[in-house]
Amino acid sequence: MACSRIESSDLDNLRPLSAKCKNEMTNFQPQYPDFEEKVRQSFARQTVMNTIGARMTRVAAGEVEIEMPFRDDLSQQHGFIHAGIITAILDSACGYAALTLMPEDAAVLTVEFKVNLLSPARGEKMIARGRVTRPGRTVTVCAGDVFALTDDREKPIATMLATMISLRDREGMTD
Amino acid sequence: MACSRIESSDLDNLRPLSAKCKNEMTNFQPQYPDFEEKVRQSFARQTVMNTIGARMTRVAAGEVEIEMPFRDDLSQQHGFIHAGIITAILDSACGYAALTLMPEDAAVLTVEFKVNLLSPARGEKMIARGRVTRPGRTVTVCAGDVFALTDDREKPIATMLATMISLRDREGMTD
Amino acid sequence: MACSRIESSDLDNLRPLSAKCKNEMTNFQPQYPDFEEKVRQSFARQTVMNTIGARMTRVAAGEVEIEMPFRDDLSQQHGFIHAGIITAILDSACGYAALTLMPEDAAVLTVEFKVNLLSPARGEKMIARGRVTRPGRTVTVCAGDVFALTDDREKPIATMLATMISLRDREGMTD
Amino acid sequence: MACSRIESSDLDNLRPLSAKCKNEMTNFQPQYPDFEEKVRQSFARQTVMNTIGARMTRVAAGEVEIEMPFRDDLSQQHGFIHAGIITAILDSACGYAALTLMPEDAAVLTVEFKVNLLSPARGEKMIARGRVTRPGRTVTVCAGDVFALTDDREKPIATMLATMISLRDREGMTD
Repeated sequence: MACSRIESSDLDNLRPLSAKCKNEMTNFQPQYPDFEEKVRQSFARQTVMNTIGARMTRVAAGEVEIEMPFRDDLSQQHGFIHAGIITAILDSACGYAALTLMPEDAAVLTVEFKVNLLSPARGEKMIARGRVTRPGRTVTVCAGDVFALTDDREKPIATMLATMISLRDREGMTD
Repeated sequence: MACSRIESSDLDNLRPLSAKCKNEMTNFQPQYPDFEEKVRQSFARQTVMNTIGARMTRVAAGEVEIEMPFRDDLSQQHGFIHAGIITAILDSACGYAALTLMPEDAAVLTVEFKVNLLSPARGEKMIARGRVTRPGRTVTVCAGDVFALTDDREKPIATMLATMISLRDREGMTD
Repeated sequence: MACSRIESSDLDNLRPLSAKCKNEMTNFQPQYPDFEEKVRQSFARQTVMNTIGARMTRVAAGEVEIEMPFRDDLSQQHGFIHAGIITAILDSACGYAALTLMPEDAAVLTVEFKVNLLSPARGEKMIARGRVTRPGRTVTVCAGDVFALTDDREKPIATMLATMISLRDREGMTD
Repeated sequence: MACSRIESSDLDNLRPLSAKCKNEMTNFQPQYPDFEEKVRQSFARQTVMNTIGARMTRVAAGEVEIEMPFRDDLSQQHGFIHAGIITAILDSACGYAALTLMPEDAAVLTVEFKVNLLSPARGEKMIARGRVTRPGRTVTVCAGDVFALTDDREKPIATMLATMISLRDREGMTD
C-alpha cells in the first residue's frame, strides 16, 4: 500500500494533505511561527484537562499528543477509564492538531467525531495522539488514537475520526 | 412521516424495535423485572459520574436520562462544557438504555459512537437522554441527545448515534 | 420526553431547529419560495439516481423522501441491497433536506455521514427519509432513515447521522 | 509517533492487531489457507459491484483493494461520483478485509460505518483500500480510504472507519 502523491485540491482552496503516510506529514506548513505557543495557551484554558490530570506532551505541525494517568475516579462500571474521558483527550488532541494549521486569528470547534473503542482503557497512563488527515480553509478532518501504556508497552484503546471547523471573526471566540 | 409498523427481524433474533416513533417505544419489553435496579447499581459504580456531578434521573425500558450541573472545571477553552464530558453522559445514557433491554446476566460495552455537536454546551445544567433504536441479541443501536437547560428552556447541544454490545459469560465482567 | 422549546443560537447565526420533535419541524423556514423546484432539478442531475431507479417522492422544508425498488443487480453477497446503495439514497435524502433550508445560490456538499445498518435490506422497495436536525449558516446536521416496504409494512433498515455544508461563491458549483 | 508493541487482548479473545503501523500488519494470521479464494467468490456474488464496474484488485491478510473506473452514470449533481458509490467500494473493501481474518465458516456483515468525504470524486478511476484495524472474535474494526487516480497520481477522496461483525451458524448466511 504505497503512499500516494498528493496534489492540491481544486475544490475549496484546501492545502495538500498527507493522509496516512507518515513521511508525507512533514508537508504540513503552519501559517505562522508561534503556533505551538498558541495551542499550549489554549489547552491551558481547558479546565477539564487539569481536572482529569491531562497534559499536552507534544505539539507539531498537524500533530498533538496528550497524556493522562490512570485514575480510579474517572472510571466506568468495570474499572476502566470511561469512554467519555478517553474521548475528551482524543478530541482535544485532534482539535489542537487542526489548530496548528489554522490562521493565527482562528478558533477551532469540533463539528463531530466518531470513536471506536478497541480495548478496555486500563494501564498506567493513556496517551492520545491526534493528527490532521485533511486540512482545509473551513473544515479540517483529523484522526487520532489512544494507547494505554503498561510496562513501556502501548496498546491501542480507541480510534477517532473527527471533523473540525475553523471560526474567524466571531466575537469573543478566539483560541 | 407516519410511524412504521414493525415486524420482528428474521435475521438475527432481534426483538421488535420502535425506531423514531415515540408511541411505539412502549413495545420494548425488558427481560426481567428488576432492570431499573440493576442499571442504577451499575451507574453507581461509574466513579466518573460522581466526579463530574452527574446523576441518573430516569430509567425506563429502552430509555435513560442523566443530568449534570454546569461546572467551570469541566470546560474547554471557550468556557463551554468539554465535548468529552458531554459524550460521557451521553454514552452512559445510551449504554444504560441498551442495558435495560438485555438479559439479567449481561454486561454492556460501547463498541462505538458518533457525536455531532450542535451548540455550545452552556446553561444551568446538561440533560442527556439515551434511547434504544434497535435492540439485538448481540448488537444494540442507540441514539441520544444532550440538552442544555437555562431558565426552564432546553436547547439541543449534541446528538449521538451509538452501537452497544451485550457481553455474557465473560469472567468478572458483569453489570 | 417532552419537546424542548428552542432558542436561536448565539454562537454562529444558526436558525432555530426542531431536533427530534416532529411538531416543531414546521418551524423550518425556507429562504426562498421555489426551494422544491431547485431541489428536484438538482436531484434530476444526479445520474446515479436514475441508474439505480431512485426517485424523489417528497420535498418539504427540512425533509426529503427518496424511494427505489428492490433490484437484484444492486445487491451484496447475501442478496440484500448493498449498504452503499442504501447510503446513496440516504445521503441524497439528507443532503437535499439540508438544501431546502439553504439560500437560493448555495450548493450543498456532504462533509461526512455515519450509517448504522439495522436489518437486511430486502423488500419490495426502499424508502429513504432525510430531515434536518440542525440547520446552520455553514454546517447543517441531518438525520435520516431507510425503511424496507413489504406488503404495506415498513421496516427500518438503516439510520444515518450526517453533516452537510453550504457552499457559496464557488465557481461552477451550484445546485 | 513510534509503533506500539501489541499485546493480546484479555477482554474478549481478540487477536493481536496492527493498528496504524504498516510493518506490524504482517502480524495478521488468517485462520485457513484459502481465504483469498473465499473472499473473491463472495465478492463475485455482489452483483452491485458488477453493475458499477468494480473489481477486486488485491486480497491479503487484513487488506483488500477494489477499483472502479469513473462513470458518468454514477455521479451526483456536480458530476463527481456519488458518495454512496464511493461508500459501496469502501464498505466492500473493509468488509472483505475483515473476512480475510475470520474463520472459514463465518459470514461478515457491516454493523456501521462513518465516511468523511475529502475531495470531489473525479479522476480516471477510484481505488478503495480497506484494512483491519482491530480483528476480533465477534467485532472487527476496519479503516479504509478511497483515492482518485489521474495521470498516475492518487488523491485521497474519502476515508472510512467501520465496524464489521462475524456471523456463524446462521441458516443460509454464508460468505
